[in-house]
Amino acid sequence: MSNITIAVDAMGGDNAPAEICAGAVKACKEFQDIEIILTGNTEKIKSCLEPHSRIHIQQASEIIDPDEHPANAIRKKKDSSMRVAMEMVKSGDAQGCVSAGSTGAIVSGGVLVVGRLPGIDRPALGVPIPSVEKISFMLDVGATVRCKPENLLQFALMGNIYSHKILGVSNPDIKLLSNGTEEIKGDDTVLGARELILQKKNLNFQGYIEGNDIVRGCADVIVCDGFTGNIALKLGEGIMKALKDLLTEEVSQSLIAKSGMLLLAPVVKKLWSRFNYEKYGGSALLGVKGAVIKAHGRSKSPAVFSAISAARNFINENAAELISNEINISEVK
Amino acid sequence: MSNITIAVDAMGGDNAPAEICAGAVKACKEFQDIEIILTGNTEKIKSCLEPHSRIHIQQASEIIDPDEHPANAIRKKKDSSMRVAMEMVKSGDAQGCVSAGSTGAIVSGGVLVVGRLPGIDRPALGVPIPSVEKISFMLDVGATVRCKPENLLQFALMGNIYSHKILGVSNPDIKLLSNGTEEIKGDDTVLGARELILQKKNLNFQGYIEGNDIVRGCADVIVCDGFTGNIALKLGEGIMKALKDLLTEEVSQSLIAKSGMLLLAPVVKKLWSRFNYEKYGGSALLGVKGAVIKAHGRSKSPAVFSAISAARNFINENAAELISNEINISEVK
Repeated sequence: MSNITIAVDAMGGDNAPAEICAGAVKACKEFQDIEIILTGNTEKIKSCLEPHSRIHIQQASEIIDPDEHPANAIRKKKDSSMRVAMEMVKSGDAQGCVSAGSTGAIVSGGVLVVGRLPGIDRPALGVPIPSVEKISFMLDVGATVRCKPENLLQFALMGNIYSHKILGVSNPDIKLLSNGTEEIKGDDTVLGARELILQKKNLNFQGYIEGNDIVRGCADVIVCDGFTGNIALKLGEGIMKALKDLLTEEVSQSLIAKSGMLLLAPVVKKLWSRFNYEKYGGSALLGVKGAVIKAHGRSKSPAVFSAISAARNFINENAAELISNEINISEVK
Repeated sequence: MSNITIAVDAMGGDNAPAEICAGAVKACKEFQDIEIILTGNTEKIKSCLEPHSRIHIQQASEIIDPDEHPANAIRKKKDSSMRVAMEMVKSGDAQGCVSAGSTGAIVSGGVLVVGRLPGIDRPALGVPIPSVEKISFMLDVGATVRCKPENLLQFALMGNIYSHKILGVSNPDIKLLSNGTEEIKGDDTVLGARELILQKKNLNFQGYIEGNDIVRGCADVIVCDGFTGNIALKLGEGIMKALKDLLTEEVSQSLIAKSGMLLLAPVVKKLWSRFNYEKYGGSALLGVKGAVIKAHGRSKSPAVFSAISAARNFINENAAELISNEINISEVK
């Protein structure tokens, strides 16, 4: 029997609702223990949904646009597909929710609707980053723009639990993103966070990590403020896209290069799939009372499936409760 | 006749002194108007220097190691090749200096030895970033870890002059690095800087730039604090290196892929040369009394040549004086 209910915002993201529905169906076929509630325009959802006994629809008449002011949109659009999904988490009708909609609105909704865990000052958005050696978990990538040292400590504690419980890393290496690896590097916030994290003997803290080591897989958990993390994440996406575009353009101008590209295709495909966000389950809003998973705005069904799967793991592992306990033990206010 | 004297730290960087000497000779052959003073161990320099009438040697017995505390090293090692080169700028024996040594020590030396321009609160290290459409100039990438809004305004003013005078861009587009393009994005510092920069009608300010647009060539000048800029710059280097390593590894395992790579070689070479730091003249420490150019630590002779060439342009264009005038007109204290 199913014992996990996940609310999925059927209207968020570039490929809603068709790819969202397809991802939900895929997830229900794969996991026998989940029930999914799709929120949004019933007619539109029905028109593209392959019926399934464990997929239900909850009508929601509004949609939050990507360019709306996040907090205002969440406050005002009470009948939006995203807010309705989050209200289900708040009421306990669902244990988690997934949305491919506006990141800002998801963060705002996480705080304003779902609510922060007791003791959590600010939430963090964490994202699995594929790197040469492993999958690193980086947080915050945009929930809390600037942080106090105490926030970064809480991010380290939350990242540690996520990496261990959801990504399956035993005793995760934790590093703090800074402008050099020497102890004297960093601004006051980073230096302060370093001191606080060093005091937590249960964290396997390994000091600073520099920008060039982010993709080398030198850490299981990379802790930073939301401003820096957001820029780093987007820069990485931007570089990959620029290289792909430039390569495509150059190759198109030469027959020899085209032949070379054909022969190289399997290698390039393998390389690209390594950095493919669709496999890595979206980003998790940590520090709120439930599983709140953000799927990439361009998500197609495999990415939606991954995000639902991450929400399921989060719920199965009681990650929110573990975080809450950890924060309260740590007595960080 | 030569009328520009540039002091070059012959002992700084991974390939000193041989590649530094070779770069200096190349520069003297190319530019008839420069005189170069190589600072460092006379014997070692002589052993690899092709003699040239406009290249002289100034003995310096010490070397600053990359892992020394930057400010302490500059203060204590008064006879280090880097400090001796900077002292020549201070005394007026040279108008500029070039070093491939420790970035931190160059920044410290720029402030402690060469000295800040009147009205400059904090210096900035600016670096030309190759992107899809153009060369963008990004500052600060590590001189001033965290900034006040006034610092970022000064960086915008200095970047504007560098882009226009040294990189030859007429009316440079200036953007401020932030975690989104909407006006409400950014922390208090970025928001404050935005307000200040908007008031400068002589700046062609175009608002915020996000991480993913850094390499798209959406701005001629990208302004940020030294913490963020340092991480972005190093992340870019790290991604390029990781891709190169992964591609090399994958290709080595397949004969078909190897053949493909051979056919694709000209395209890949072209693509790589686009992002080759050796062509782009090193980074410039702006806000100090003279031309202080940092060459990449791994510089070989072409990169040293580019850095000397950037110092020559800086001096020829009176860039330090222009910056000083601009800052004083702007009445920023």
